[in-house]
Order: sequence, then structure tokens, then C-alpha cells
Amino acid sequence: MAPPHNPRRLGVWLIGARGSISTCLVYGLAGLREGLLEPTGIITAKDPFTRMRLVDLDALVLGGHDVCQRDLSHSAGELVRHGILSSDLIVAGSGLAAEYEKAIRPGTLDDSDVGFADLDSRAARLSSRPPRDQIAALTADLADFKRDHKLDRVVVVNVASTEAFRGQRDEWESLVAFEAALDAGKSQPASLLYAYAAIAAGSPYVNFTPSRGASIPALRELARERRVPHCGNDGKTGETLVKTVLAPLFTARALKVLSWQGYNMLGNRDGAVLADSAHKETKVRNKNEALRQLLGDENLHTHVGIDYVPSLQDWKTAWDYIHFEGFLGAKMSLQFTWTGSDSALAAPLVIDLVRLADLAQARGEVGEMPHTAAFFKAPIGGGTHDFHAQFLALLAYAERHNSARHRA
Amino acid sequence: MAPPHNPRRLGVWLIGARGSISTCLVYGLAGLREGLLEPTGIITAKDPFTRMRLVDLDALVLGGHDVCQRDLSHSAGELVRHGILSSDLIVAGSGLAAEYEKAIRPGTLDDSDVGFADLDSRAARLSSRPPRDQIAALTADLADFKRDHKLDRVVVVNVASTEAFRGQRDEWESLVAFEAALDAGKSQPASLLYAYAAIAAGSPYVNFTPSRGASIPALRELARERRVPHCGNDGKTGETLVKTVLAPLFTARALKVLSWQGYNMLGNRDGAVLADSAHKETKVRNKNEALRQLLGDENLHTHVGIDYVPSLQDWKTAWDYIHFEGFLGAKMSLQFTWTGSDSALAAPLVIDLVRLADLAQARGEVGEMPHTAAFFKAPIGGGTHDFHAQFLALLAYAERHNSARHRA
Amino acid sequence: MAPPHNPRRLGVWLIGARGSISTCLVYGLAGLREGLLEPTGIITAKDPFTRMRLVDLDALVLGGHDVCQRDLSHSAGELVRHGILSSDLIVAGSGLAAEYEKAIRPGTLDDSDVGFADLDSRAARLSSRPPRDQIAALTADLADFKRDHKLDRVVVVNVASTEAFRGQRDEWESLVAFEAALDAGKSQPASLLYAYAAIAAGSPYVNFTPSRGASIPALRELARERRVPHCGNDGKTGETLVKTVLAPLFTARALKVLSWQGYNMLGNRDGAVLADSAHKETKVRNKNEALRQLLGDENLHTHVGIDYVPSLQDWKTAWDYIHFEGFLGAKMSLQFTWTGSDSALAAPLVIDLVRLADLAQARGEVGEMPHTAAFFKAPIGGGTHDFHAQFLALLAYAERHNSARHRA
Amino acid sequence: MAPPHNPRRLGVWLIGARGSISTCLVYGLAGLREGLLEPTGIITAKDPFTRMRLVDLDALVLGGHDVCQRDLSHSAGELVRHGILSSDLIVAGSGLAAEYEKAIRPGTLDDSDVGFADLDSRAARLSSRPPRDQIAALTADLADFKRDHKLDRVVVVNVASTEAFRGQRDEWESLVAFEAALDAGKSQPASLLYAYAAIAAGSPYVNFTPSRGASIPALRELARERRVPHCGNDGKTGETLVKTVLAPLFTARALKVLSWQGYNMLGNRDGAVLADSAHKETKVRNKNEALRQLLGDENLHTHVGIDYVPSLQDWKTAWDYIHFEGFLGAKMSLQFTWTGSDSALAAPLVIDLVRLADLAQARGEVGEMPHTAAFFKAPIGGGTHDFHAQFLALLAYAERHNSARHRA
Repeated sequence: MAPPHNPRRLGVWLIGARGSISTCLVYGLAGLREGLLEPTGIITAKDPFTRMRLVDLDALVLGGHDVCQRDLSHSAGELVRHGILSSDLIVAGSGLAAEYEKAIRPGTLDDSDVGFADLDSRAARLSSRPPRDQIAALTADLADFKRDHKLDRVVVVNVASTEAFRGQRDEWESLVAFEAALDAGKSQPASLLYAYAAIAAGSPYVNFTPSRGASIPALRELARERRVPHCGNDGKTGETLVKTVLAPLFTARALKVLSWQGYNMLGNRDGAVLADSAHKETKVRNKNEALRQLLGDENLHTHVGIDYVPSLQDWKTAWDYIHFEGFLGAKMSLQFTWTGSDSALAAPLVIDLVRLADLAQARGEVGEMPHTAAFFKAPIGGGTHDFHAQFLALLAYAERHNSARHRA
Repeated sequence: MAPPHNPRRLGVWLIGARGSISTCLVYGLAGLREGLLEPTGIITAKDPFTRMRLVDLDALVLGGHDVCQRDLSHSAGELVRHGILSSDLIVAGSGLAAEYEKAIRPGTLDDSDVGFADLDSRAARLSSRPPRDQIAALTADLADFKRDHKLDRVVVVNVASTEAFRGQRDEWESLVAFEAALDAGKSQPASLLYAYAAIAAGSPYVNFTPSRGASIPALRELARERRVPHCGNDGKTGETLVKTVLAPLFTARALKVLSWQGYNMLGNRDGAVLADSAHKETKVRNKNEALRQLLGDENLHTHVGIDYVPSLQDWKTAWDYIHFEGFLGAKMSLQFTWTGSDSALAAPLVIDLVRLADLAQARGEVGEMPHTAAFFKAPIGGGTHDFHAQFLALLAYAERHNSARHRA
Repeated sequence: MAPPHNPRRLGVWLIGARGSISTCLVYGLAGLREGLLEPTGIITAKDPFTRMRLVDLDALVLGGHDVCQRDLSHSAGELVRHGILSSDLIVAGSGLAAEYEKAIRPGTLDDSDVGFADLDSRAARLSSRPPRDQIAALTADLADFKRDHKLDRVVVVNVASTEAFRGQRDEWESLVAFEAALDAGKSQPASLLYAYAAIAAGSPYVNFTPSRGASIPALRELARERRVPHCGNDGKTGETLVKTVLAPLFTARALKVLSWQGYNMLGNRDGAVLADSAHKETKVRNKNEALRQLLGDENLHTHVGIDYVPSLQDWKTAWDYIHFEGFLGAKMSLQFTWTGSDSALAAPLVIDLVRLADLAQARGEVGEMPHTAAFFKAPIGGGTHDFHAQFLALLAYAERHNSARHRA
Repeated sequence: MAPPHNPRRLGVWLIGARGSISTCLVYGLAGLREGLLEPTGIITAKDPFTRMRLVDLDALVLGGHDVCQRDLSHSAGELVRHGILSSDLIVAGSGLAAEYEKAIRPGTLDDSDVGFADLDSRAARLSSRPPRDQIAALTADLADFKRDHKLDRVVVVNVASTEAFRGQRDEWESLVAFEAALDAGKSQPASLLYAYAAIAAGSPYVNFTPSRGASIPALRELARERRVPHCGNDGKTGETLVKTVLAPLFTARALKVLSWQGYNMLGNRDGAVLADSAHKETKVRNKNEALRQLLGDENLHTHVGIDYVPSLQDWKTAWDYIHFEGFLGAKMSLQFTWTGSDSALAAPLVIDLVRLADLAQARGEVGEMPHTAAFFKAPIGGGTHDFHAQFLALLAYAERHNSARHRA
């Protein structure tokens, strides 16, 4: 029998389960259930998405992998001190958080992250084993989660910190080559192993991070073969979001952008990881690419700085300076300062993506979920980076779905 | 016989002929003709507009009305000192400017502007006469212009300073009532008389200012009756442009805007006029309305300040502070500073609008030109203020036109 | 016998006792006593002030007048929600807050504030009585406070919201005239009555508000007569502080400031009061005056906007744009955005001023306390607005005092 | 006979003679002489400096060294296009510029700059010769300049682009060691050779650049021995100027700076040179050092970025973000954007320094001119970086001088 269209219990498996996005998600869900919060930031809580048959927020059951030992209340306490979570939510969410805590398993560690503080020793041990063994352990965790919680389906979401950038490898170009490399015991970035485990288990996979995850050809092939929907990479939450809204303006007005400089400062764990240049590389590539495409200028003078400023904690602050030329050669400028909590911006997008990924699976859709491009800095399915165009595509998807249901 | 589709000589009649937008237009056209300038800022110089059969820039012949005496070289000198026009352009444009200067006639003065410096005495005399006489004088100027320069058609553009705001009047609600008021000699805002004269003479009319112009029901009726296309009001050149690009972002992400404060500073003649609160009223209404519509919040806390800062001259500088709430009630902000030359931003839009208005007339289109909404803060035809949606509508118009021509 | 030099118990009587500055003060003092806070923002906690014989923070006993009914826990709850006070401090300060609450008496209401929400009915009744009666009631409250708490001395501080601006009055020009006006029952701004009561009772008086308080000639005369030190007006906490630091730079570099525009947004009670133009007048005068003096340009183009933006709560946000000219007539700009909690900035300055006022009294100093100019937007004693010069004067005062003690 | 106190003809020898600072200086002097300009930015044109017996601006005669071939009119044309010089000044200054052009000699090239565009072949040849030969050539140029123009005295100023940073060398620690290294033909940074030549010839030497110049112990010894005054390093013109004005505010208010991030963008030749990390090193060191000293926090989290953004040309644009903590641990921020023409800011300071250096020589002062600290990012004589304190020291010097003259 086919799984029920609209699940009564949907598992959400978070890679990076103790991080600040996950923490915002747990307490936010609790707040929504208790009526303490409005669904601000959750686009699927608004028309026309409310007319789609998306999973109820009450049906979500949370679990996940993490490589850190600190418990959730530690992350939560930090977010309270930083003015992101309120004490009321901590109280309201304590029950849900305790259940969730029980469903967190040690994950596997990317080689590049060995040495970062606070590691779970089991995660460190797992990561030293052959990739097939790592995948088997991750797969077993997913299966246990589904069985123990009597879940209809499970969606897997990567919200861990960015892993180090690695150049293209031949073994990633086809599923055959990748399977051979796994068989040969060749070490792989952790994000690939998580993605493999999820897709092989038939779970939709959402890559909210800049890490490669399911975006390599081999895993896209695996997803098509297993008929699994997936999407990514790299949630478009802040400065890049504003960039992809503003850049089309210059094109639409035939104004010539001379330089676009962006300086990002952040102080959370993600910032600490990005301070390492191998990790930063992945992020900066995504940010530059969007601008060059939108402005139609491969030689655009653009720069993206990412600096770790611990005192800012989760409050990402970015300054962009756009120097442009108008008629008569007159030089003008637009500068903006963005101050936002990265985690509070990301968490509701994760909720949206979980609902959309589950719907895609229920509808039998397979592959890159191109209608989710608006959520990502580097949409796997490619296409324009123009946020408004991406959002219109999402609306069109919703309307097609709603019309189809209406006709049915 | 129908007028030629693509005119060999198109008159452009500028109300506010000695102002800085007109000055940028004259010298900019000269620069384009001499190959000194690229068509930066002119959207009709780009695909798909280049595939439409728009009037050549070489075919434009300039003339206009003004109420000031200072000659064009005075305005040009100011723009050079302010770093907007280069000396090269002044040299290149001297011939065109001299011809244009000969085609400028004294216009009629709005009552609210009596007392502003530097008035042409003939303009002041004209404005004291009954409205029918004023219209007759303006009409005669247009006819002379067309005849003297052997023009195929003439487009009239209002680029004068904002006139004082006036409340709705019953006599504006229908053409019959308006004609009766004119017959009765009842004084009218100058922008209405200019618009009447243009439309009655069969000329497309572009209102780039916040003044009422052809937007009152009576004149919209006149335009339909005479089968004339027209558009307006209030060119969307700077801060409001950015606002109508950014505001849809918050809606699309379900973020809640708590307050949107905008502070505009400008130092040109327009700024001096807006320092007077009766004039400012018109402008601020247009700016607030767009935000409230886009954010879907009639009670939005929003404020638009406009301050006259003489030292800034034509360099409009605006600071906007957007306070918004995300998931978990976390409060965030986006602030931007815009620094642009208002006149250099406006002039290429005027060129675009002249070309589009002429094409509309050639195609037999009548009325408010809804496809031009992207150019205006308060589009006469109404509709969304979302800049990207407006721009998509313009692109769709161009594509329909191009397809139709291709089929033909 | 002289009063003890360094009091064992010093009363601090706060006018505006339930406002956010007072709330920050109470909980902040508790936090300091419990070792939960560092004395950040308290200049007298640093050398050379620590070498003066200033009252210990442990010796301060708090009480005050207010015209509102809401209790302190309401103000405290707001400050927690706004991220200014932490929950830890609320717990730590609950005992001190309860004692303080008992020592708050209904004050007298300025005529201009009748109608603002949440008034204490006794305050409203008091304000309708003749001024001599009001003074008598206030004086009795001070005497009770001193007696009930066995205080060595009491310092009175006005931290209430700004009262409406009133033009100069003849009766304020001398003590004789003012006493006559009081005898005649002529209604007076509340801040004058509070100041009169304090000084007549021999208490040093600190006016942290822009209201007139003790700055009128009549009350300065009273202070000299009663040999009481006092200081004010209008705490220099945020945008004006930055202005008076930056403006001397332009003078010292012979750069010519063309325009200085400042836009202040705030959302606390003070903001609500200032939204009323009569109240705003007082504030804006102080802000403009400083700039004109510092830049030595009576005709400086300057503007100060103050807008009430409720969502900002206590987080004052200000944007200043400084347009200036350098060598060769080149035009340049400096813009800054200040984001600070007005109350958290003000509270430590109040602590400093209480300590300095008490010391001045102990030393037998009389009158305007010119060494405190660095604390005020409109120092009663006049002098430069240059913050660094003011601060050097304060340091010099401290050093003179320390040397004198050393010699003694 | 002693040289005249107030010279009738003072030579100003500019190293970097064709750069934009020098160009601003030449045309600016011409503009001042013709009455086209006010002395904006020249502090010595204001009281109390006007009461000192400083050299008249009319007495200055310009010459200099450069390693580039492009002629002055090229630099001037660029500055006109960038809106810094006006066409009027170009006309007014053509005579002076032509004379100056004749007095420019090819200089010597720092090793690190070989390969930068547009080099004078004679400069390249000179730089390949032994250091003693280079010094001899530079010395001969200075002697010729003095003789040919009948100059009373000559002041040498380094306004060339920053040279690459080099670590400390033992041979710089004493004059004996340095002379030995020169004798041994050991290659030296160009700025040292220029400084040696100037001081050995008895000319006061002003180092406006971050290059080492006369700041090494060996050359400071030489200056004392030859009884020559000198000053430097690194003109404090823009972002660092603002930093050293603002930082003392935080100290004076006992506010705790958590992070201070500064991002500089510039597009002139100096920017191109600084894009190279070896050159940037020198600059960033000076900028960080000042902040750490002023805030009294050796562990301050601070970052200075310098990015080359060609479209900005001479318009240095910098954004600083200051994150700080106030009372109660409340976190606040101040951000500023500085937009200034580096060359137009530097040129008047060079005029001031030339006048002060000449006066110092006339008065028989020897060494580091500590009263000029306000002009430099890294004052050779050390001391506070607090701009106001530095400026008070300069005023005090002027007053001492004026009193001495009055008494005399």
C-alpha cells in the first residue's frame, strides 16, 4: 500500500542536531504548538501554500545526528542570552526538547573538522572507519528513528556547519565510480555519506549547507534511481538574499554596476568554522557566482569577505557597497547594512523545505526540486539567481498543485 | 493616411525645459549621437526593446516650456560643477543646446509657485489670464513647434518641479464638469492646463512629476475621447525604486515589517520646492502608499522625510531603516543609504517613456499605458507597486509586440 | 558639626522613579552588589576617580517620585523583553526593587503631561493645587525619606520624561520674582517645583532631563543662597555625544562642514513624549546649539529629527549625515548609525553624577558644578561642548581633588 | 650669517612628484595664489598658527623625484574626471605646473615596485646601482634644485606610494651599522635612501607615507647629528583619523569595545599598490596599533581590511563597525561610512607640515617634531594616538612659540 498522502507522523532528521538552527527549530515548533508564536518567517503558513496538502506542523517528530557533546539546553541558553529565544519559549519547549534530545545520535565527523572543540568521542571513532561502515551506521540510526517513533516517512536535512571545500573528483562523476570508491574504502567528505545514507534509505534530503551533500552527479543519479526528491545547496537567508533581490534592479534599469563589495561578520559556530579559509572557500564561491550571473558580467569587480567576530554571536551583520554608473557616466552608490539572526532566519525555511520535500515525495516527484530555488544560494537544479523569479516559480508550482487537486 | 509608424522626426516637448532633467537630456542625447556616451540607464537600448520598432534617438527634436529665465548654459554649468555632466559633453552638446534653446517658450506658472526666484515675466503674465487663454497659448506653442520643425508627431513630457498639492475637486471628476470650470474661468493647477493642451492637440502626454497632470478623471476621459495614450505619475528613480524592490522580499519570506523609516535629503531646485510643505504633501503620499500596499499592512508604521540640504545639490541621498521581525519574534534590521543624481537617473527614463509613448500612439493604443507602471511611483493605471512584477509586465508587452510584428 | 565626608548612607531620590532609567539603576546596583555585573559605563569606577573619596555604591539608598501607577516589575519586564536587562538581574534585584518600591511617592504632574496614559490619581490631584502646596508636599516626601531611612544626605535626580518647552518668563529671572510668583499661586512647570523643593531642602540636584529644572536664574540664585551644588541639563548619552566628539575634528582639520543632518528614532516612553512637538522643541534646541558652537558657524545648515518608532522600544537608533568640504572644494561625507539603549547608557551616568554631587556638597562646593559638563547636552555653567575638552576638565577636577587630599 | 628666519624662497621637494597628492598640491597652491580657493583643510591658515612666523604660501617653490613617466597633466586630467580638481584650477595652475614639471627628476625605485606600470627607465637604471651611488644622485638633484631656484632652504616630503614592508634589520639600529651596510653596497628600501639624502643635505624631512623613511634608529641618529628636524610616518587623513577621534570616547565613558572592524576600499594608485599583501602589511600595522593603545586592550578583537576597488579611484570609502557593551551588559553598536578624496585630504596637511618643518629648522629644533603627532598614524616620537590630545599638543606648541616671539 502506498504511504498516506498527508502523513500523520513525519520524521525530521537533522544533521547538526545540536546546532543553533536545530535549537531554533525545536523551541519554535513548541512555541507554535502552544500558541506562543505566530508563524512569522514560515512561507508555507501563507496562501497559496496553505491550500496545498502539506504536512501539519503538529505531525513533525524530530531527531538527528550531531558530532558535538554539548546538550541542547546549552545551545538554548546561548540563544536566550543573545536575545533570540525568549525564556517563555524555553519553558514551553522543555518537553519537546527532552524528547528530541533522546532521538539524537552521534554522527560522523568530516576530516576537516577534527580538532574543533567539544567533539563526541563516538563521532570521532565513527569517522575513522571505512566509508561503507559509516554509511551503515547512519542508515541504522535512520531506520531506528523511523521504527521507534512509528513514522510514516522521514525527511533528512543537513544544517551542520560548512565542511572544508574539496576540488572536483572523478569518482563523484557517476554512481558507478562513487560506489567503487566507497568499496575501495576511499575517505569521503561527511556530507556525502549523510546524503548517501538518506537517499539510499528512500528519504528526501535537504542540503541547507554549502557542503556538497547530494549535489555531486553520483548522488543525483542515486536519487533518480531510488526515485527520491532532494534539494539544496546553502540556505539563502541573509546578505545573499538581499543581493539577489537588488541585483536584478540594476539590470532592469540598465544601470552599470562597477563594483559590488560585501563584508560579512558573524560570531556563531558557523563563523568560527568559516574563519578557516578552507571552509570559507565553499561559501564565497556561491556568493560571487550569483552576482556575476544576475548582472550578466563575468568580469564584475566583486568581493565577499567573511570575518569571524565572536562578540556578534548569532547576529550576522553584513555591509554591502554597490558602486554603479548611470546615464552620462554619473557614478552613484547604494550601501546596505543587514543585521539578522542567521539561525532564526534559517529555521522557518527548514520547516518550509521539510514540508515541500515530503509533498514532493508523496506526489512521486524525483530529483532536484527546481521549485525550491528561492531557498538556496546555489540551487542544485541551476537556473536564475533572481529571487523574485525564483519565488514566482515557487508560486506557480503551488498553483499548479492546487489546480490539480481541485480538478481531481 | 496614417502617420508613419516609425517617425523620421519626433518632437519631444519638455515642460520644465530649463530644469536639470531636461539639461541632462539635451547633453546626453548629444553625447550619444557623438559616440561619447554609452546608453547606460536607457532600458529601451537593450533587448528585447531593441527589437521593437521604436523611434531612433537621432530622430528626436527637442523643445519645451519653462517659467524661468536662466538660460540652459547656466543649468549645464551647475551640473558640471556638481560632477554630473563632463566638460566634454558641454562642448559636444553646444550645437544641439543652442537649437533647443531657440525652441523654448515661456510656459504658465502654477499659482503656488509665484514668488519662487528667477521667473520669466511672460510666464507670470500668462498665468494671470483665464485658463482657456492659457491653454490656447500653450496649444499654439505646440503647433508652432510641430510646424517649424516639420515633425511627424510630438510627445509632451512634464519634468517640471512638483506643484503644490490640492485636494480633490468635483470639477475634475468628469470632462463635462472640467470644461465647464474652464469656461467659467476657474483657476486650475498649471499641470492640468499643460496636460489638457497636449492631449487636446493629440500628443501623447508623459507626467514624470507628482503633480496631477493627466491623472484626473476628466483628463483621462479626454485622452480616451481623443484616442491619445498617456502615462504617469512621478518617476520612480531612487529611494522609492529601492523600496519597491525590497518590500516584496519581506512578503515573500513571510517576515513582518515593524517600521519602515525613510529620510530623503536633496539640494536641487526640486528640493527647494519640496521644502515647502504644500509641495511635499504630494510626494510623501506617493511614497507611503507603495509600501503599505506591498507589505499588505494598512497600519504599517512608516515615515518619509524629505529635507532640503542645499549642499547636496542634485545628489539625492536617502537613508532607510527597516525594522522587521523574523521567526521566534527575533527583531532584525536592514538599512540602506542611496546616493544618486536624480536628474541623471530621470533623463534616460524620459527617453524610454518618449519612445514607448510614441510607439503606443503609432499602434493606436489609447489611455494609461499600464505597461509603463515600472517607471512611476504612482502609476495612473494602478496595479501592483512591486517593481519586478511591473518590469515583467513591461517585458511581456515588448514580447507581445515583437511576436505580433514577427507574425505580421 | 559638619556632615560626614563620606556618607555611610546616601539617599538617591529619583524623579521619574518608575521609568526605564530608574529601573536600570535599581537592578544594575543590585547586580553590582551581587558581583553579577562589571561597572561598565560607570566612569567613577575607574582611575583617577577611584582615588577620590566618593560614596560607596553599597551606601546608596533609593527612593523617588513618579506620576505613573504601573509598578517597577512592569518596567523591568519590558526591559527584559527588549534584551536590556537579563533574567538573572531580575532575580538578583528583587529584594532591592521591593524596598525601593516602598520608597516611591506620587509626584506632581506637569500641565503638559495631563492626558498621557497610566497616571497616578494622587499625582494628578497634587498638580492641580497651588505651587506652594505642591512644593510643600514634595518637601515632606524628601524629609520622610531621609528620616525613615536614617540617611546622612540625599541627592535628588530628575530622570523623568521631557516636559513641554516654555518660553522665557520674567518671573524666572530672579529669586525674588519667582518667590512672588509662587506666592501669587502662578502655575509653574513641574521640573521647577521639584528643583525648588530639593534645593530648599539642602539637597544637591541633578537635572538629567532637558526640562528647565534648576537652570533658571531664580533657582541658580536659590542654590547659591542655600550653598547647594547642582548640575544639568539633559544627559549626553547617544547621538549628541558622538556629535560633540566628531565636530571638533572638522574644526581641528580646518574642514568646512556644509550640512549636518541627524535623524533620531526611538520607541520608549521618552519617544512617545517627544513625538509631541511642544516636548520635542526643548530637545532639538540643545542638539543644534552644540553643533553650531563647535563648528563656529552660526549659519550652519543643520537639522535634527526625532521620530517615535514604537518597535524600537528603548533602542535609540540615529543616523547622522555630515557633508563637508576639503581642500580644492572637494566634497566629502561621513555618516554614522548609532544603536544604543538610552536607559542603559543613562543609568551609569546617573550613578557618576550622584557620587560627584555628593562629593561637591561634602567639599562645600556651591552652584553649577562646571566639571560635570561632559555629562550634559546643555551644561548649566556653559562652556565648550567639545566632549574631550569637557572630559579633560573633569579629569583635572579629579586630580586637583586627589592632590589636595594627598597634601592634607 | 644664519639663513633668514622667514624664507623668501622655500623649496618643497616632493618624492612622488607626479602622484595625486603632489598634483593636488600644485594646482591647489595655484588656486590659492589666484584667489580661486579658500584655504580649507590648511590648519596653519587659522589662528593661532597665523600668528606664528610661518613661510608664506607664495614663497614655496616646488620640485621633486618620481619613478613614473606620465606627465603631470595626465594625473591632473584624472583628478578632474574624478571630480576632485575643477577645470578652472587646471587653467589657473598651468603656469605653475609647467615650471614644476621642469623641476622633476627621475627618482630611485624600491625593489618591490619593479614591475608596476609606467616606469621611468632612468629611475629603473638608478635603482640597480649601489646605494651610495643612488644617494649621490638624489643629493645632486637636491643641490641643483636649491641652486637653480635660488632657494633659502629646502624641505623634503615623501608622498610616494607605500613600499613593501620589511622586517627589522640589525643594520638599521645605529648610524655606524647603517653607514657600513651602505659602504658594503647592501640594497636598501628606497624610502631610506631618500631620507638619508635629505637629512645629510641638511633638509628637514617629512615622511607622509607608511614606508620606513627616517624612522629607523640609524636615520634618527643622523638627523640629530646634522641637527635636522624631521617627522612622520603615514599621514592620518581618513578612517584612522576618525578612529582616533572616536576611540577615546569609549574609554572616557568606560564603555567596553568588544570588536572594531574596519573595511577600507580605494581605487587610486595607492590602492593598487596596497592590493599587494607585502605593501598592505605596513599600513595595517599602523592602523591596528592605534586602536589597541587608545582602548587600552591588547587583546581587542580588531580587523582592518584594505581592498582595491578601481572604480572608486581617489575616493576612499571606509566602513567601520564598532560593537560595544554598556551598563548591564547591553550590547550596542556604532557604524560609520567615510567617503573622502585621499589626495585632497593629504595635500593641505603636506602644506602644514612643510611650514612647520621649516619653522622648526629656523628655530634650531632637532629631531622628531613631537608636536606634529596629530598629522600621523604612526608618529615617530611615539605618544598617544588620541587625536584631540595630539591637537592640543600642537596648539600648545604654537602658543609657546607665539608667547616667546611676543616676549622677544
